[in-house]
Amino acid sequence: MPSDLGSPAPAAIDLGLLSPVTVGHDAAVSDGAVLDALVSAEVALVRAHGAIGTAPQSAVDAVSRALGWESESSGCRGHGIDPIALAAASVAGGNPVIPLVALVKQRVPSDVRAWVHRGATSQDILDTALMSVSRVAGAQATDALRRTERALVKFISANGTQTAAARTLTQHAVPTTVGLRASAWLRGVRRATERLDAAVRQLPAQLGGAGGTLASFVEIAGADAAARLPAAFADAVGLAAPDAPWQTTRWPVTELGDALVQAIDAVGVIATDVATLSRTEIGELAEGAGGGSSAMPQKQNPAASVLVRSAALRAPQLGATLHLAAALAVDERPDGAWHAEWPTLRELLRLALGATAHAATLVEGLRVDEAAVDRNLGLTGGLIVSERLSIVLMPLIGKPRFDALIAEASGGGDLATLVRSMPEAADLDVDALLDPVQYTGLADVLVASAIVEHPPATGAR
Amino acid sequence: MPSDLGSPAPAAIDLGLLSPVTVGHDAAVSDGAVLDALVSAEVALVRAHGAIGTAPQSAVDAVSRALGWESESSGCRGHGIDPIALAAASVAGGNPVIPLVALVKQRVPSDVRAWVHRGATSQDILDTALMSVSRVAGAQATDALRRTERALVKFISANGTQTAAARTLTQHAVPTTVGLRASAWLRGVRRATERLDAAVRQLPAQLGGAGGTLASFVEIAGADAAARLPAAFADAVGLAAPDAPWQTTRWPVTELGDALVQAIDAVGVIATDVATLSRTEIGELAEGAGGGSSAMPQKQNPAASVLVRSAALRAPQLGATLHLAAALAVDERPDGAWHAEWPTLRELLRLALGATAHAATLVEGLRVDEAAVDRNLGLTGGLIVSERLSIVLMPLIGKPRFDALIAEASGGGDLATLVRSMPEAADLDVDALLDPVQYTGLADVLVASAIVEHPPATGAR
Amino acid sequence: MPSDLGSPAPAAIDLGLLSPVTVGHDAAVSDGAVLDALVSAEVALVRAHGAIGTAPQSAVDAVSRALGWESESSGCRGHGIDPIALAAASVAGGNPVIPLVALVKQRVPSDVRAWVHRGATSQDILDTALMSVSRVAGAQATDALRRTERALVKFISANGTQTAAARTLTQHAVPTTVGLRASAWLRGVRRATERLDAAVRQLPAQLGGAGGTLASFVEIAGADAAARLPAAFADAVGLAAPDAPWQTTRWPVTELGDALVQAIDAVGVIATDVATLSRTEIGELAEGAGGGSSAMPQKQNPAASVLVRSAALRAPQLGATLHLAAALAVDERPDGAWHAEWPTLRELLRLALGATAHAATLVEGLRVDEAAVDRNLGLTGGLIVSERLSIVLMPLIGKPRFDALIAEASGGGDLATLVRSMPEAADLDVDALLDPVQYTGLADVLVASAIVEHPPATGAR
Amino acid sequence: MPSDLGSPAPAAIDLGLLSPVTVGHDAAVSDGAVLDALVSAEVALVRAHGAIGTAPQSAVDAVSRALGWESESSGCRGHGIDPIALAAASVAGGNPVIPLVALVKQRVPSDVRAWVHRGATSQDILDTALMSVSRVAGAQATDALRRTERALVKFISANGTQTAAARTLTQHAVPTTVGLRASAWLRGVRRATERLDAAVRQLPAQLGGAGGTLASFVEIAGADAAARLPAAFADAVGLAAPDAPWQTTRWPVTELGDALVQAIDAVGVIATDVATLSRTEIGELAEGAGGGSSAMPQKQNPAASVLVRSAALRAPQLGATLHLAAALAVDERPDGAWHAEWPTLRELLRLALGATAHAATLVEGLRVDEAAVDRNLGLTGGLIVSERLSIVLMPLIGKPRFDALIAEASGGGDLATLVRSMPEAADLDVDALLDPVQYTGLADVLVASAIVEHPPATGAR
Repeated sequence: MPSDLGSPAPAAIDLGLLSPVTVGHDAAVSDGAVLDALVSAEVALVRAHGAIGTAPQSAVDAVSRALGWESESSGCRGHGIDPIALAAASVAGGNPVIPLVALVKQRVPSDVRAWVHRGATSQDILDTALMSVSRVAGAQATDALRRTERALVKFISANGTQTAAARTLTQHAVPTTVGLRASAWLRGVRRATERLDAAVRQLPAQLGGAGGTLASFVEIAGADAAARLPAAFADAVGLAAPDAPWQTTRWPVTELGDALVQAIDAVGVIATDVATLSRTEIGELAEGAGGGSSAMPQKQNPAASVLVRSAALRAPQLGATLHLAAALAVDERPDGAWHAEWPTLRELLRLALGATAHAATLVEGLRVDEAAVDRNLGLTGGLIVSERLSIVLMPLIGKPRFDALIAEASGGGDLATLVRSMPEAADLDVDALLDPVQYTGLADVLVASAIVEHPPATGAR
Repeated sequence: MPSDLGSPAPAAIDLGLLSPVTVGHDAAVSDGAVLDALVSAEVALVRAHGAIGTAPQSAVDAVSRALGWESESSGCRGHGIDPIALAAASVAGGNPVIPLVALVKQRVPSDVRAWVHRGATSQDILDTALMSVSRVAGAQATDALRRTERALVKFISANGTQTAAARTLTQHAVPTTVGLRASAWLRGVRRATERLDAAVRQLPAQLGGAGGTLASFVEIAGADAAARLPAAFADAVGLAAPDAPWQTTRWPVTELGDALVQAIDAVGVIATDVATLSRTEIGELAEGAGGGSSAMPQKQNPAASVLVRSAALRAPQLGATLHLAAALAVDERPDGAWHAEWPTLRELLRLALGATAHAATLVEGLRVDEAAVDRNLGLTGGLIVSERLSIVLMPLIGKPRFDALIAEASGGGDLATLVRSMPEAADLDVDALLDPVQYTGLADVLVASAIVEHPPATGAR
Repeated sequence: MPSDLGSPAPAAIDLGLLSPVTVGHDAAVSDGAVLDALVSAEVALVRAHGAIGTAPQSAVDAVSRALGWESESSGCRGHGIDPIALAAASVAGGNPVIPLVALVKQRVPSDVRAWVHRGATSQDILDTALMSVSRVAGAQATDALRRTERALVKFISANGTQTAAARTLTQHAVPTTVGLRASAWLRGVRRATERLDAAVRQLPAQLGGAGGTLASFVEIAGADAAARLPAAFADAVGLAAPDAPWQTTRWPVTELGDALVQAIDAVGVIATDVATLSRTEIGELAEGAGGGSSAMPQKQNPAASVLVRSAALRAPQLGATLHLAAALAVDERPDGAWHAEWPTLRELLRLALGATAHAATLVEGLRVDEAAVDRNLGLTGGLIVSERLSIVLMPLIGKPRFDALIAEASGGGDLATLVRSMPEAADLDVDALLDPVQYTGLADVLVASAIVEHPPATGAR
Repeated sequence: MPSDLGSPAPAAIDLGLLSPVTVGHDAAVSDGAVLDALVSAEVALVRAHGAIGTAPQSAVDAVSRALGWESESSGCRGHGIDPIALAAASVAGGNPVIPLVALVKQRVPSDVRAWVHRGATSQDILDTALMSVSRVAGAQATDALRRTERALVKFISANGTQTAAARTLTQHAVPTTVGLRASAWLRGVRRATERLDAAVRQLPAQLGGAGGTLASFVEIAGADAAARLPAAFADAVGLAAPDAPWQTTRWPVTELGDALVQAIDAVGVIATDVATLSRTEIGELAEGAGGGSSAMPQKQNPAASVLVRSAALRAPQLGATLHLAAALAVDERPDGAWHAEWPTLRELLRLALGATAHAATLVEGLRVDEAAVDRNLGLTGGLIVSERLSIVLMPLIGKPRFDALIAEASGGGDLATLVRSMPEAADLDVDALLDPVQYTGLADVLVASAIVEHPPATGAR
């Protein structure tokens, strides 16, 4: 049915065609990257056996060389294992590690073959590989969030003080500033960055053997050495050493998932605001490079916002699946819940990569139409400060007359004239009272604290 | 970061490595298939313009030829458009149709180029292509469900009458039969088949132009011809003619999604039962070909059940995303909700393809260990018929003595001996009363009706 | 509808305070209503035993009388059972039916007590009661949907022909009409009505006994009579007769859930459009009675839209839980999945009741600000018909000059003047060409077909 | 905890009848408790105005007295406001605070009435009240988790060293210990406790005024005092002081939600294991007090596990809704997303309260059937140590002969005899080699570290 796509055709499910939000940002979670991480985990296990003194250095070297091991941070490259064939072979046993072991063994000299996958179970390798991929992808998403933070600080510095309409339940409410809105975005992104960074840094390697007892490793290396093996393995793959095998204790997965969803929420709300404020009738914001249309030549769509929002509508339900899998992680390896995690976590990483990258670009290019902001601010003829009026006037004229005043102004009466016509208002500076710019409260203070809180070193990251 | 995968490497996100449940069953939803469907929709639009008499036949022929059009059911093949490049180009505008139009135009003679995408908007092409892909994939999943039904009928015919323990809240409850359990599976699968078949048959083409008014087509072809265009387009692409443009009326998507989730539920519950009844301690069922282990040579895992369950844990949340997108389909094309549908619907189709295919194979190979069924049935020493005992004995001996009897038997007493020792039971056939085989109620009747309801023609489908 | 509940204070978790969308619309799903349905199911079972000739009429009458049985459609009222005490007693066994049986027995004369719950299991009563509640609540939601349909037809008749801006990805795209947008809403609501109505009509009673074999009923009544019992029970409780026990074949629940979510989607998209088009800057639509503010006296919030949207954001995830429960319905009664359905289905019914009622009111009061519609239509200075211009002009002047024209107009040039200055446009009626009202395509035809399709008898329902 | 609710009958949606998992544990989240928290927030605002020197102490005292203020930790009791009437009045404006303000004002002397809700917006009060309720309920859930931890430590101390079958993909894999499985539960619960405790401690008050600028407070109190008001308000209500208004920066809600779901996951996996290992055929574990059955007198159901699992299947989707609401928190107060949070967060708190309480009781009463554990361990005739055999024997006899050995033993051959018959095994201690008890690896070490990590002071918390 599919076109000829070159050799990977039959299995090439997803090349990005239906996922524009992630195209170009998701190499770190591709099946190629996953395969590299799987192979790297297998080699790292041999290296860990070497590190604790079980495997001879010659075996470590031979296996590392045969699989293209580069370093703890880079893992294996150029091992030549075909992901499509491996995927096909993974069906019978339900996971790709079973056939991978055979393929890896084929690639190493026969005299060191016994050291491949020595004592391990599939889950050791697969969980570790997913954590490795998550570490790289999570760090990339964290970087994109930091880029977004910097762009927000810059945006606020450039546009922050302009008074604008605050809207609640879609209606103009009171004045705010362009900067206060953006500083709320900034606080959300910064919080998400911290959470994601922490979640990524704690990602543990997995090593427990078939049942989580490490019994095979004890058999091979003795209890003392086996006890040192998980940390050595973690070291070899660049992950945190686990407290214990976490085969059915899945918080490393759900906490990562939650942090990824939180990151997507944080940029999602920016995109939602930008899409709204870019509406033809509102026009306060515009993306630097809007998207075109196949039918309407005049259009400038908020394309990045749309893409980020598409991710934000999808991510929470993926996060939910990870939690379900955690709660259903029965026995010493569950009958489906574990398998449900793999593509779900990958898709969530992928969405985070795409959404954060687009958000960074979006904010970097975000433009304010100051005239539109001003025009909208004046749309209600001063009623946007009616809260202030109520505080000042109601004690003077009472609630019935105040309500009548607002009703008359809402019906088209000129608010300033109406207020000035009241004797009780004789001492008031009506111009100042009705000036939205003079009713922004602590906006500037809150903006300043948002920027100040921004770690000065961030720019250098 | 990823290995060299041949040319598609950078964009090859998903080759199946983390989705063993779908490997080998999801070609119909690959990006290659989606691209074919997109190209086919573009060509079908030209053909529809021809059918209503707007476009000259020479243009229809030239465009069809240039893009490799084969037929309404096969669409275009061999058009030579690269999905990876197209995906990359789709980011700016947020959808792949905008760059696709340019690529398609390049491939047709310049004198007929104006007929490409004539009057259409991106959503016309993308929605239609997704429906085309859904039609093919949905039909494949329906076929797999029907295969499962046939296998279930065969399984029931072979094993149906054996008495087995019914379990509620994990505990032995009363007797049932192997066949009654399987006939509940059958009823669920059959219902899902009907729903999915109906949902697939009603899938409509989309044609509304930029705002859903078909104004462009009226401009091009006049109102009368334009009114006939959607049906002609649907005909050319093998889908149902839409009542009206459904750009923001998304029940065709959610009803399909619901039917796909229902299909996965129906096979998911089979997999859940099989996984449970395959447990080492229970052992009543075994998959024909169990999965192996990378560490434990003796194991025969219920690998198909595990894979099907992994799909069943993921599908409902994907279905939820489609509903969210439907509720948020604002304006005449929404700002993210539409885009969230594409990969979600595709993944749901993919899971349905994989889960139903594995379920069919699972049931076809499913084996009953009759001895284990018998052994388990006897595990409670006859207490599995205590409900029957309560109906028969309680009127004779009263509730306090009955409760004492059950307590004594639960504590290890021989139930038959205890019952026989009661004078009130003198006239009872205690052997019959305690025989689980004689307390299966209407099981055989319900099994027969499940099988009878099965359309006799099914075998020939 | 619910019984007198006495003094529920300590356990009164939810009185509606945090659910304004449902307040006043959810009596049919209150715990009082659920309790009535549970009691009614117990009485209906006795009546069914009477109908098949097992129980004596005197027992039927005595039990019916003691529990306040009124009719098949009304069930039991005034039975005096305290839902709070019952809830407290339900914890030990994990469901309320176990203690309910004891309470019901207490209320009937001792000589007919044995007929209470005769042969049944908890699930028979609980599933049946939930279906009864669903039938009533579902019918109420269906009525509210039909009320919405009628209000939409009226709205369209009153406002349908006005030309308005169609928006895609938040930007003005081409003209449409107020009526075409509303007719898309109508098509969605009508579809949802049909689906929900069908789902409600098919709701089956549950009767299978402890393991789904009906063995207890066979023991009590003989096989022939037992085979007639489920239909008699369904008849007594006003539900459809089940094909077979569906204890672990949960499509009756998921199909209802899907239909409820679809109903909420259908009104959710109306609410989303209304909220958007009510924005201060857009102002095309206004709810009849907007909500006030605790702080801002001038505001008229689209309160009904907000409430409906709050339901639409929640419902899909509840529907997902029902599907999960269906897929995990292991054994003959599952260990948690069944229990997860109860509050989830109830909340979904509740949201449907509230969302559809508010939607009906919203549409009934919906007002169009024709001046705002016109003003917005003109906002782009005619560029809203640039698609039409491209169709007409591009063949005359070529793409480069056309693009330059649009760019100049987008930059502020007067579009009409620019077009008239082109010699190639000499023969064009530029006023007509640039008039949005003359570029609405088949809008009126589509509106007419939407209204015509509306069953004429609907008004009388 | 909640106020006296009067006669809530007609609106009593949820008295717990369909939520046995939460009955008796959810008073802290009842509408009565929510109402108390709302009233307390209103009073706390007056107290905060007093604390910063704006409101006179006489007003503070009068308002506090009139509403039954007790203390920062207890808030208001006995204020006499009817939650049902309030709920009914909340519909028009879409939230209960608007009518609440009027009701609160009625209760205070007219001369201090102006201090009620002074400068605030509905969201200030509602968000703060939800955080107050969350603080209490979250702390209760944390306590229940700690109770679960202590019970697990005790369980492990009593039963930890017994060797048991580890199961992967439902099949016996290798030996483990009862204690290692429980220590995995313990690690998960402890992690969840820490996360929930941290999330609860950081819950902030909300105070921003209508648009998040605090402009009204500046108008009333001046900028300096207004800047101190949020912290004073937080102090008065016993919550953390917010960095800034978080009206549309919703991580306080989603992080709490994530922690609640994680807590439910952590006890959910215990419940899933207990339900599985309580199966009639497995019988290794039993709840202290199993649930009964309405039909089957002999049954002892794992009722607590079932209830906990019902919560675990529901919670993740509720958490997803909170994230969606966060991503869609448009403008300065969103049009539905905020409203979707209220009942969702409440239900999630409620599930956490119920699930953790039942889990604590479950673990406290959990019993091990040592004989069943032993019997199951021997079920595979020694093949449960085949991994160890492969490590030891394969180097001696090669893979083909090893595979043949396993196949023969799987087919019924006596493993010990088969091994002893091999000349290469002459020097092996076959009894030791085949003894599962001698192949538990680091289980005891991992158990010890799990217990040691347990803070000794926990018992005193």
